[in-house]
Amino acid sequence: MNDAAKQLIRDAMAKASASQTASAYAPSNIALSKYWGKRDRARNLPLNSSLSISLAEWGSHTQVVPSKDGRDRVTLGGEDLSLDTPFAAKALKFADLFRGEDGSAKTPLWIETSNTIPTAAGLASSASGFAALTQALCGAFGLSDHLSEAQMSLIARLGSGSATRSLWHGFVRWDKGTQEDGSDSFAQPLNLQWPEFRIAILPVDVGPKSHSSRDGMNHTVATSPLFASWPDQAEADCQAIETAVRAQDFDTLGALAEANALAMHATMQAARPALSYLTTESWALLDQLWQARKEGLQAYATMDAGANVKLIFLGRSTDDITHLFPQAQVIEPFKTL
Amino acid sequence: MNDAAKQLIRDAMAKASASQTASAYAPSNIALSKYWGKRDRARNLPLNSSLSISLAEWGSHTQVVPSKDGRDRVTLGGEDLSLDTPFAAKALKFADLFRGEDGSAKTPLWIETSNTIPTAAGLASSASGFAALTQALCGAFGLSDHLSEAQMSLIARLGSGSATRSLWHGFVRWDKGTQEDGSDSFAQPLNLQWPEFRIAILPVDVGPKSHSSRDGMNHTVATSPLFASWPDQAEADCQAIETAVRAQDFDTLGALAEANALAMHATMQAARPALSYLTTESWALLDQLWQARKEGLQAYATMDAGANVKLIFLGRSTDDITHLFPQAQVIEPFKTL
Repeated sequence: MNDAAKQLIRDAMAKASASQTASAYAPSNIALSKYWGKRDRARNLPLNSSLSISLAEWGSHTQVVPSKDGRDRVTLGGEDLSLDTPFAAKALKFADLFRGEDGSAKTPLWIETSNTIPTAAGLASSASGFAALTQALCGAFGLSDHLSEAQMSLIARLGSGSATRSLWHGFVRWDKGTQEDGSDSFAQPLNLQWPEFRIAILPVDVGPKSHSSRDGMNHTVATSPLFASWPDQAEADCQAIETAVRAQDFDTLGALAEANALAMHATMQAARPALSYLTTESWALLDQLWQARKEGLQAYATMDAGANVKLIFLGRSTDDITHLFPQAQVIEPFKTL
Repeated sequence: MNDAAKQLIRDAMAKASASQTASAYAPSNIALSKYWGKRDRARNLPLNSSLSISLAEWGSHTQVVPSKDGRDRVTLGGEDLSLDTPFAAKALKFADLFRGEDGSAKTPLWIETSNTIPTAAGLASSASGFAALTQALCGAFGLSDHLSEAQMSLIARLGSGSATRSLWHGFVRWDKGTQEDGSDSFAQPLNLQWPEFRIAILPVDVGPKSHSSRDGMNHTVATSPLFASWPDQAEADCQAIETAVRAQDFDTLGALAEANALAMHATMQAARPALSYLTTESWALLDQLWQARKEGLQAYATMDAGANVKLIFLGRSTDDITHLFPQAQVIEPFKTL
């Protein structure tokens, strides 16, 4: 079956220069309109479009170096990993998209990654990790001049769905596309500044994740009787959220983003057996937020496939947020842009 | 518009004897397959069938007495109520179905009700209340010989949807019916004994209810993008739950009942704005149950339009339940039958 990402790489490789050291940085991102459900698992092709905000300096730095000793090497946060760890295996499998999947002709690579996301924030780094790895691999194989960022976004999708949106800072929209080969399923930045926009991460301790987001998504699509109504609603939400972002209509955006997240979690709650990434502590934080909102706070919540609660608000509410939630880790997505 | 309940009353009244004192008892009930969503609000006609277990000695005693002083009187738990309180107004409006809605010709009535449901259990008494009131009114107006219990169930439906299922002890199924006038929307008992079957109420304190179940149902149907998938699933659940009850297959029944309840709450969570009867404490109880189930406990949860968590289990698990949940109020639905 043809795959648009693989085709792009092949075409660019035909024009590529020799391999060289290259590095890249990509921010993590939080979806305000969620990606939940795939129409094609192998290509991470989504059932609905999604829209995210990137997390500025929270992300992944990745360097790809042609290996001197003829062997692959994967380093994470300064530590060499055994090549059969899940992280190393996934990174090398992704690199194979570039260097070919036939063992003998492979260019041996050293992939070195470090994440700047505070461990306590409990955010997955697969979005920023695969986005940075895509860019670094494109640099290492001399493809950067031959591929646009949108095309790199399309390629990053094969690593992780949410990586599709991590090629840029600010607001990014991933259009679901309709083509079977994935050629029209990639992201684009909204190219707008909203300096007052803020995110706060409220970490909730849960120990190791019980289900990967991938497994949770597949289980929900397969068993949740309420999932059938999700894709159309998510598509409508994504459009309405884009409109609210462009209008900088914060309350409309917040209400839609929170409703979209709760609906996503509702599809999981109705899965059989039920799936709940949210814990009692997550619900307590939501209760606290809803109570504060009744008293005038302009802040809304969004939650992903994990127990953390993320808040969106505007700069003028920062003091209220940090007073109410002393554990809040505040991000200014447009500060460094 | 014709209404089957009103027609039944009219037909029976034509044969009725003079009014007299009559009393009745009806148990409360908990739906294992939920009633959620109406196809006709005035008649409480449901979008899906439901199946319940009655709560034995937890219920309502109601006596209807032709008034001696020519004035209506409503007494609840030994206290006379002002006739404009919601309870008195609803009870008298329901009585008007029997005595006619034209003020001058009305038979003045004294309606005396007492509920045996522990206040701490936090259960609504509208199911048992309207079921007992229906039976007492039928007795008072001499209709008991002319109406079957199923017909009284149909009439009780006009008072409260869940009252439709409170005419009997044990397991009761309310078939949604398809007729516009409601003539085929009434309940029937399953007529089976399952002496080992147990219910425990885990009360969760929330103060006065923020939304009535009626308002919550209407808001969810009107705004929840996930509700569209509910009626068909609920109908399938009801059938599967009836099959499991008849087979006395407890684990299948429990898993289905819990999934059905979570799906109902998921439709509310996706409403816009979100509606949550469950509180942080409710979720903590569910977490505790799910943890215990991993360790072998055979018990399942169901939750209605309130914060309480209700457990179903078999007699052999009673000690485990009361040890884990010292606040549990245990009911033996078949003890007194």
